Amino acid sequence: MVNQRADIGWQSSKSDSSGASNSGESSKESSRCSTPVLDADRTDRLRDKMKRRIESGDHWFSLEFFPPRTTSGAVNLISRFDRMGSGGPLFIDITWHPAGDPGSDKETSSMMIASTAVNYCGLESVLHLTCCNQTKEKITAHLNKAKRLGLKNIMALRGDPIGEDWVEEDGGFNYATDLVKHIRCEFDDYFDICVAGYPTGHPEAESYEDDLRHLKEKVDAGAHFIVTQLFFRAETFLKFVKDCRAIGITCPILPGIFPIQGYHSLRQLVKLSKLEVPEEITQVIEPIKDNDAAIRNYGIQQAVEMCKVLLASGEVPGLHFYTLNREVATMEVLRQLGLWAEDPRRPLPWAISAHPKRKEEDVRPIFWASRPKSYIYRTQDWDDFPNGRWGNSSSPAFGELTDYYLFYLKSKSPKEALLQMWGEELMSEESVYEVFTNYITGDTNRNGHKVMCLPWNDDPLAPETNLLKDELEKVNRRGVLTINSQPNINGKASSDPIVGWGPAGGYVFQKAYLEFFTSSENVTALLQVLKKYEPRVNYHIVNVQGRNITNAPDMQPNAVTWGIFPGREIVQPTVVDPVSFMYWKDEAFALWIEQWAKLYEDESPSRMIIQYIHDNYFLVNLVDNDFPLDSCLWQVIEDMFVLLDSPQVTQDEGSEL
Amino acid sequence: MVNQRADIGWQSSKSDSSGASNSGESSKESSRCSTPVLDADRTDRLRDKMKRRIESGDHWFSLEFFPPRTTSGAVNLISRFDRMGSGGPLFIDITWHPAGDPGSDKETSSMMIASTAVNYCGLESVLHLTCCNQTKEKITAHLNKAKRLGLKNIMALRGDPIGEDWVEEDGGFNYATDLVKHIRCEFDDYFDICVAGYPTGHPEAESYEDDLRHLKEKVDAGAHFIVTQLFFRAETFLKFVKDCRAIGITCPILPGIFPIQGYHSLRQLVKLSKLEVPEEITQVIEPIKDNDAAIRNYGIQQAVEMCKVLLASGEVPGLHFYTLNREVATMEVLRQLGLWAEDPRRPLPWAISAHPKRKEEDVRPIFWASRPKSYIYRTQDWDDFPNGRWGNSSSPAFGELTDYYLFYLKSKSPKEALLQMWGEELMSEESVYEVFTNYITGDTNRNGHKVMCLPWNDDPLAPETNLLKDELEKVNRRGVLTINSQPNINGKASSDPIVGWGPAGGYVFQKAYLEFFTSSENVTALLQVLKKYEPRVNYHIVNVQGRNITNAPDMQPNAVTWGIFPGREIVQPTVVDPVSFMYWKDEAFALWIEQWAKLYEDESPSRMIIQYIHDNYFLVNLVDNDFPLDSCLWQVIEDMFVLLDSPQVTQDEGSEL
Repeated sequence: MVNQRADIGWQSSKSDSSGASNSGESSKESSRCSTPVLDADRTDRLRDKMKRRIESGDHWFSLEFFPPRTTSGAVNLISRFDRMGSGGPLFIDITWHPAGDPGSDKETSSMMIASTAVNYCGLESVLHLTCCNQTKEKITAHLNKAKRLGLKNIMALRGDPIGEDWVEEDGGFNYATDLVKHIRCEFDDYFDICVAGYPTGHPEAESYEDDLRHLKEKVDAGAHFIVTQLFFRAETFLKFVKDCRAIGITCPILPGIFPIQGYHSLRQLVKLSKLEVPEEITQVIEPIKDNDAAIRNYGIQQAVEMCKVLLASGEVPGLHFYTLNREVATMEVLRQLGLWAEDPRRPLPWAISAHPKRKEEDVRPIFWASRPKSYIYRTQDWDDFPNGRWGNSSSPAFGELTDYYLFYLKSKSPKEALLQMWGEELMSEESVYEVFTNYITGDTNRNGHKVMCLPWNDDPLAPETNLLKDELEKVNRRGVLTINSQPNINGKASSDPIVGWGPAGGYVFQKAYLEFFTSSENVTALLQVLKKYEPRVNYHIVNVQGRNITNAPDMQPNAVTWGIFPGREIVQPTVVDPVSFMYWKDEAFALWIEQWAKLYEDESPSRMIIQYIHDNYFLVNLVDNDFPLDSCLWQVIEDMFVLLDSPQVTQDEGSEL
Repeated sequence: MVNQRADIGWQSSKSDSSGASNSGESSKESSRCSTPVLDADRTDRLRDKMKRRIESGDHWFSLEFFPPRTTSGAVNLISRFDRMGSGGPLFIDITWHPAGDPGSDKETSSMMIASTAVNYCGLESVLHLTCCNQTKEKITAHLNKAKRLGLKNIMALRGDPIGEDWVEEDGGFNYATDLVKHIRCEFDDYFDICVAGYPTGHPEAESYEDDLRHLKEKVDAGAHFIVTQLFFRAETFLKFVKDCRAIGITCPILPGIFPIQGYHSLRQLVKLSKLEVPEEITQVIEPIKDNDAAIRNYGIQQAVEMCKVLLASGEVPGLHFYTLNREVATMEVLRQLGLWAEDPRRPLPWAISAHPKRKEEDVRPIFWASRPKSYIYRTQDWDDFPNGRWGNSSSPAFGELTDYYLFYLKSKSPKEALLQMWGEELMSEESVYEVFTNYITGDTNRNGHKVMCLPWNDDPLAPETNLLKDELEKVNRRGVLTINSQPNINGKASSDPIVGWGPAGGYVFQKAYLEFFTSSENVTALLQVLKKYEPRVNYHIVNVQGRNITNAPDMQPNAVTWGIFPGREIVQPTVVDPVSFMYWKDEAFALWIEQWAKLYEDESPSRMIIQYIHDNYFLVNLVDNDFPLDSCLWQVIEDMFVLLDSPQVTQDEGSEL
């Protein structure tokens, strides 16, 4: 059982929260970047999205998370964003942890976690910000940074004063209202602003009515919507909404939902938030307090029933969940409510970043298909993103490989797991071929472990790639070490569960693509073979020194995935681009060393084998342009092997390279 | 027999050339805008194109024309550019006619004819310019204007001094060399410069050797290539080239070829150019001097034989033809030499303009498909042209309809012919339906005339549209007056002779498109029917007042023609764009009045019928997005007729409009 941080949500309390553990659950699930639900206009503001959903009567949900304490906790939390993002939250929010250097560039800061959610996971995100004991300059600096990082929404909170003897400061930030005013004054209408509501009154408020008046002040100062503190009975919230409406608060009010997940976490929460747990709940919980599963099941049931009442009231456009950074209970509640919208349709074949600067982006090189976060990171300084055509983006410069954040280069798996998968000791290049082959087949290796990832693929084979499994196995066994591929597709419905993407009623297409490392001997034969496949097959072949052999016309990009939709221009989201391939090749070769070679001792035979491959193999990509026909790329590889097996090749060996 | 202008080519002579008639041959042929041969890089300079062709041993040809005297001559000459352009000339050149206000904005000026060739016909063009008796300011003004119009190449000539007593002026332009220097001095390397060479010496030169030295001076001053005066024997030219090379002239030297086309034109030419016709030619010609056909056949044979010798010598990279603005003889010579390259492949489905500003242009709205020159004219002031996506071009503003040049609004046919085709007298709207139907079927009308054009279609039905003939006939008969359509295409080879375009090895696609005028009663029923076809069919329906009914999502453009090619991004050259449709509708409705109604007397019944249609009909376009299926658009129309024929429609009539 993992404890949650005590600063659940934004509730105000004088207790120091640093005592609680904050490590996330370790995750074995896929971290494939999820895709947000279809969003007609990515420039939309959160308030506009809410307005449209309210008008159409389409209930939403949102999810609250707190920043993790460790970098590995951050890696896990981001995987969770991806998974929970796939259910279609309208937004997520990240709490502000004053003691945790929340505005810093640390991987674990509130600021960086929220930035990651927006930029890398494509989630509409709200950053909490507390103003108590902060200078205006500091607050403005935080807001400027948030804006620069692509954050568009702020949850404006007072926060917990430090020390018992807090007194109001003249001209300082004494209440959340001051922060709301400051944001509107300094940033005009740029941020969408959320404020907190207390269905049973703020614990420090003089009265319930006094607290309602404070809430009205916050809204009048410029807040766009309200999220409430948690509560245990639907009628508590519904009375609160009625009282808010009575004094003229008209903006959306979202109930804070807390599915009870454990006895201890509930007790701690109650202590900190000064909320009373109703007797009907304690009566159920006390007898089963040592049975975690039973309590969680009860929590789910209780939350589902309360949410049903809330949604049926007509007063609740959306539900806000305090997840405690966990996913099972919240997902189950949402599934039972029919709100978990795991939509297999994707707007594009890759996950769209929610950074406003990237709103036009709709073309990417195929090379980073398995490493989208690395791609986003390396292109974060671009002023323009390609729109419609890759060629429109004038000579893009990719960020340096050496700048990498933890999230983008590091494997999720610990060293021990990697050694089990990739071999404690390598005997030869063939040992490496075996690792690739086992990754493809899903078979266990000689030591009984499955190869769940490779340096270039953090996750098991994608369903689409599974279609190519037999061919991939055959060629990997012989040292064609595949790291990326896609089958050809000739006009499948955009709703196809495996290869579909984009709006309904469309058709999607692909050219067959294959990317692999292979020895220079193989490349010599391959080049011989490729002459027969002109101009059907385009190729780029490069080694770590940058020696580059290609037949791409005029260094033009080749569109390899495109879609045709009703009433729209053609969308071509994936290209093979000669220029960006040279940046990708640096990253692809570096992963041999950074992720694999460094598992072994310096000078060890294992390390030297990987180093040899890094130094001598070529990275090859092949495109079959004749997408209506069956892919010829397997035949190309087969022809290469035939040529290698024929006697005269030995004489020519190395003649071309 | 039509006389040619006396200022053939750029040859220098003291004779006044104004005596000769300059009317072009009247043309009954198609004026469909031809498409230049595939050109990998439209930014190429002429000198680079020559260099590449010389390196690859790929012989070229070029064509010289002179400006016509009348506007109808200009319309005909432009049709000829289109036809002769389809044979693939490397460039054409337009002579400078000092007496004809050559730098003015008249439709017949050298400047405007050259501009039309570049901008509207997509031909690489060289503008002649003579400097004799011109101030530097005037010359610079001409050059600036040429640059502004998209001209990139100048043929620098001295021209004919006026009067017998010409003497050199200090600081003036006395020789073509002065003009070459001036161009290089004022415009640096912007223009590619051509100069004249005289295989038998300039008639005013002191000696052949002296003339060669002058030529060397012109090249040294910055000329890029040489075109020669005509000659009658291959050895004359080959000796000249040898002599040029001997004194260090290294640039391309193109022989001027003059296919003899008539006895009188040859005699006049000889008189003006002071050339001697060799005896072997006069011996053949004199006996047949009254037989035009025989002389022309001889001229073709003589030119072909001489050109074969020239090309076989290895000294001649390309042939320059003095066409005398006529096409038959030159085309025949080129065909016999195997140089006429009528390549059915088109780089795009529409003809590309050769204006350097438009070099990126690769998307156009479908509406102007039959009126490409009007489109180019109306968009000539655009700073950017859409590249890859129509959506990228931010709210394009189209030039005013009222600005129209003769070339763009006027019908090629005279009023009498139009009345014969469209009816001396119209009895009712049904008379108009009959005109449309006869245009589609190709049948003769009641008066025995074929309808060869309509105001929206200057030419008979395109081969592609012929595929839809039966359906078109049926609907036009019932008052669905079609003006534009294309069938759906699901991945035909880019080399397809009817619908193919773009590089080899690709596939082209189309969505079915239909555009027509029809009555408001029909539109009421159509809207009812279209509900059944959501979202498969997109429509825009508009009347002359601009009342606009559409189901296009967010006013986005719909790509209706696209192609997939080896090693390239997707090309989508034709879109249905809601914004530009509103500009097109002004033009489409105006054509009813400008071309048709105005054929009849004011207040005449015929005129009032056309005016009624103009005022009351709607312009409709339909796109069937489901391109892999057979077009449903005919079924849509059929359903509309069924609904109109059913009794209850009469009650609802007008309820929607």
